[in-house]
Order: sequence, then structure tokens, then C-alpha cells
Amino acid sequence: MQTRFSPPQTMPAGQSDYSFKALLAAFEDQFNDRLFPDTPAILYDAIDYALSNGGKRVRPVLCLMGNTLVGPLEPDAFLAAHAVELYHNFTLVHDDIMDRAPLRRGRPTVHIRYNTSTAILAGDTLQLYAFEYLNCMQGRYRQKVAAVFLEAALGVCEGQQMDLDMENMPLEAVSYPDYLVMITMKTSVLLAASLQMGAMIGGAGEEDQQHLYAFGKNIGIAFQVQDDYLDAFGDPGKFGKQVGGDIITNKKTFLLLKARELCSPAQQAQLQELLALPGDDAAKVPGVLQLYKDCKVDEWALAEKQRFQQIALQHLENVAAPEANKKPLLELADLLLNRGH
Amino acid sequence: MQTRFSPPQTMPAGQSDYSFKALLAAFEDQFNDRLFPDTPAILYDAIDYALSNGGKRVRPVLCLMGNTLVGPLEPDAFLAAHAVELYHNFTLVHDDIMDRAPLRRGRPTVHIRYNTSTAILAGDTLQLYAFEYLNCMQGRYRQKVAAVFLEAALGVCEGQQMDLDMENMPLEAVSYPDYLVMITMKTSVLLAASLQMGAMIGGAGEEDQQHLYAFGKNIGIAFQVQDDYLDAFGDPGKFGKQVGGDIITNKKTFLLLKARELCSPAQQAQLQELLALPGDDAAKVPGVLQLYKDCKVDEWALAEKQRFQQIALQHLENVAAPEANKKPLLELADLLLNRGH
Repeated sequence: MQTRFSPPQTMPAGQSDYSFKALLAAFEDQFNDRLFPDTPAILYDAIDYALSNGGKRVRPVLCLMGNTLVGPLEPDAFLAAHAVELYHNFTLVHDDIMDRAPLRRGRPTVHIRYNTSTAILAGDTLQLYAFEYLNCMQGRYRQKVAAVFLEAALGVCEGQQMDLDMENMPLEAVSYPDYLVMITMKTSVLLAASLQMGAMIGGAGEEDQQHLYAFGKNIGIAFQVQDDYLDAFGDPGKFGKQVGGDIITNKKTFLLLKARELCSPAQQAQLQELLALPGDDAAKVPGVLQLYKDCKVDEWALAEKQRFQQIALQHLENVAAPEANKKPLLELADLLLNRGH
Repeated sequence: MQTRFSPPQTMPAGQSDYSFKALLAAFEDQFNDRLFPDTPAILYDAIDYALSNGGKRVRPVLCLMGNTLVGPLEPDAFLAAHAVELYHNFTLVHDDIMDRAPLRRGRPTVHIRYNTSTAILAGDTLQLYAFEYLNCMQGRYRQKVAAVFLEAALGVCEGQQMDLDMENMPLEAVSYPDYLVMITMKTSVLLAASLQMGAMIGGAGEEDQQHLYAFGKNIGIAFQVQDDYLDAFGDPGKFGKQVGGDIITNKKTFLLLKARELCSPAQQAQLQELLALPGDDAAKVPGVLQLYKDCKVDEWALAEKQRFQQIALQHLENVAAPEANKKPLLELADLLLNRGH
């Protein structure tokens, strides 16, 4: 049987610069090639389109960094890095269908550019290719790395279902702890797992793996708090999206859920009135922003982001690796958590 | 990290009866238990609903038979059997969305019973659990078994895209060989791979594995030819679906594609007229059936089914295993290929 997938040559010769920039370049050098067969043309064109979305490639770089933190860069880390990036892109394609999103990063989403059936299939196929890459790893840790990947991948799907459920629930029925669990699964466990997978490939011990997992998870949560904050209070010139977009759509965010907890009964009533306004009412965004400031949820959000960032950094400090090796991870965390304001 | 999946106890104690009936019962005994977590409730309820569809469980039984043909039943074969059945059900859930099918085996499809978003996620999650099961296998063949599975799984997705493409093509643009490739990938390669995976687990040599793969593939094609035949010429009492359903919807089938080849220019014109009739025109089904008989595509289909069945049996004969061990496979082939007429 002729197979359509053979282990790619993913290891750049002589890669010894382990900085963020160098690892990103090395990954993109491979990833930006067309990785897939030519036919069926529509299916693989849709996949190519989905992958060329200008994403930041944070997960694969975290995977490579998990490796280089504790040992020399292994070809298997490149395979795992491909797997997490393919999986991440699969989730974007399917989430966009579920969210009926017309655009991603300014371009039509896959189901709009092609059609829903092909978008479903493109996602399914991306998921399979993620496993193709994982299955090509040569090291004896393959089964354990796959188990970490699968656990995170299931978490992402469960988190997406929780998100769908919460969208349909009244605001008062969604607690901040429940939201935190959902958003962690949906957005942070794959970051965490990427780092742990790389660390396993590099030969890290169990305890260091767990610290790196926790570092990645808490950086992810801090990023999400920041994302919600910037949607409301970001500089429109620097922040990539329409400021106030979450407010217009009544999206449940860190800010909205915490504001409900923090504000007085009078403010609660005011908030309900503002939420009841249509999205295009000119009073809605300024009204909610003022209320956020009045109950100081803006300050809370910045402090909360700081708190998760500190937890993350403590875990990184606890990793038994030379301080110099930790620099690329600190650089990446800084890049993710100091933008737009 | 607490994982949500731990290797199940899938091996029934003292299983020594390797007949079709006994292996099916052993598999269903495990598979009919709720295999998944409780929350998010909607997601896992939808999965449970998808799996309790009264399917024939042919693929997992083929996987177990591939094992017992060449060696004693291994726990890993049960894990692989779960994987192929979960994967197969994932494809049904997603295909039903793409086909906008309201019913499957007389029950509402998952996207109708729940909603499209949950059906997409339920499929995605089923796919992940298939890999969870595969990843729990203990034998040294794990990587090779996963590669065979992945190759078939990709084939199924590609076959589905080809099917979508062909649906939108004019009849004259779809050749019989192209259709055969499509239907083989969509419906037969997973049957073939199931058998090969079991054989690998049982310790079969490469050549025997290939013969078993070919046996499964050709049985699958023969079954599909029969399915198309029965849709047109089956006994309505015995055949599970509405007879003539394919004709009503102008579905491209073995019969329609071959009829175009076999019939005279006058009959071609007549066929075009019949295809142009609306599905509820009382003249459509009898007209097409008469034309099928006139150009003898009914006889051709029975001969074609026979031809693929013979190829399959020849491959099974070539497998270096005791004749007695082949009996359950012959029994299963007979069960699949002698129904409804």
C-alpha cells in the first residue's frame, strides 16, 4: 500500500540558535511549505488556505522551546510542533463554523471562502495530519507525548462545548470560576501541553514537565484576561480588533462576569439596561465602559493578569534548568503579555 | 495532571470462541457501556446517542477476526476495534451534517437531535477518542498499526470530499473508474484497514496482511455494488430503505454510471429525460428501472458484485493460515453479501 504520508525532513541542519526569533524562523521555514497532497484539490486548497492565516505560531515555538530548555533540539520536537499547530488550526476552522464567523484576521473564514462541508472536512483532515506527525516521532516517549497531546486536545473540545453552553445561559447563571475553567480549557491547555511535549522530548523530568505545563497554562490565562481587557480599553490603533466588540455582542468575558460581582445593586440594574440595548445603540459601549471604570473592573483585570503572570513565572523559576536557557521563554511571555497598551 | 482517559479493561476473560457471533458479543459487551465522562453533558450525551445507533459493528469484528485468524485474541485488538468503530461513527455524524440527512436508521441524526455545533464537536471528540484507544495499545506494533489506521482514515476524508465534488458534477463528467476510486476510499478502506490492524496485532506477516487488506477492500466494494443494486431492485420488505430512493434523488450510483455506458444513444436521451423529471413524478422510478433492465445493468451489477467477491475470496485463500481459522471471515462475508434478495 502506497501511503500518502511519509515522515518529513523537519530538522534544519545545524540549528543551534535557540532564540524565539530563530526557532520561529526554523519552524516557519518548514511549515510554510505545502505539506499536503494535491488532490482532492478543494480539500487540500482549503487546508492550505486555513494554514496561511498569518497566525503567530506560538504553540509550535513553545514546543521547540520546551525541548531546548533542557536539551539539544531534536527532530521529534519539530514533528510535535507541527502536530500542535495543525491541531490548533483545525480548532479555528471548526470554531469559525460554530460561531458563524465571517472573518478571521481580516480574511474570509474557510467555510465562507469554500463551503461548510469542505470546512468540516478540512478540519477533520487537519486533525488526522496532526496525528500523522506525532506518529512519526522516533523516540521512546512517543506514547507519553501523544497522551499529553490527546488530553489537551480533548480539553479544547470540551472547553468549546462549555463555551457554547455558556453562550446560551443567562449572565447570572455563569460563575467566574466556571468561566475560568472553560477559558483555560479552550485557550490554555494546548499552550501548556505544547511546552510539556517539547520538554518530554528534550528529556525533562516529571516535575519540570509539570512546572512547564503550569507556566504555559498560566501565561495562557493571563493572555486571555489581557485580550478581554484590550477589547474594552485597548488603543484602537495598536489592538487588531474593533474596540468594544465584546460589549456590542454582550459577550461573556472576564470583565463582564467580574463586573457583575463587583458592582452595587444600582449598578447591576444599570448593567442589565445596557445589556438590553441593541448592539448598534451609540450609548451602549460608552455606558458599559463607564460602568466598568466605576466598579474598577479595569484595575481588577490588570491585577488579575499580573497575578496569573506571576504564578507562571514562579513555575518557570522552579524548573531545574540553567537561567540562560529560560531566556527565550521569558522573551516570548513578554511578547505575548505586553502588547497594545 | 489528572487525565480523563485511562486504558480500559477491554479483554473479556477466557474468550476462546472466535466465531462471528461470539466476537460480536464480546465487543458489544464492552462497547455498549458508556465509555465517556459525564460532562460537558450535551457533548457526551450526543456521543452516546451517536454510538447507540444499532450499527452492525462490522469494522471492529473484522479487526478482532484479523487477530484471531493468525493468533490468540490480544487485548490490543479490542483497543484497535474500539478505535475503528469510534472513527466510523465520527464519519457518520459529520457526513450526516454535510448531506443534510434528517434520519439515520430511522432516528433523527445527531445534528437534528442536538444541533450542528454539538454534532461537529461530537465528531471531533469521537475522532480523538479513537486515537486515545490506539495510543493505549501495548505492543511494539503500535506505531505501524496507527500508520495503517491513519492512512485509511485520511482515505475516508478524501473519499468524502470526492463524493461532494462528484455530486456537483454533471453525470457525464463522472467516469466509472473515478467513482470506483471514490466509493472505495469512502466505504472500503476502513474495512480493509480494520482487518489489517487486527492481523498486525495477531502477528501476521506483511504478505498476509496485504491479502487481508485486499480481502476487506473487495468485500467492501462488492457490498457497495449490492447496496446500489438493492436500492433499485431489492425486496421492499427485506431491504431497510425506501426502494428507488437513489433514483428519486438522481444519486450517482454504480447502476446509473454504468447504465450510461451500456445504453444506446436513444436510451441515453430517454435517461436524460427521466433524470430531468422531479423526484415525485410517478413515472420516474418505473421508467429508470425499465431502462436499467433494458440495458441489462441489473445483470451487470450482480456480475460485478460477484467479481469483487471472487477477488476477495482469492486473497483470503492466499493467506497462510489454517482453513478452519478462515471460517468466521467467510461467514461474515456471506452475511454481508447475501441479504435482501
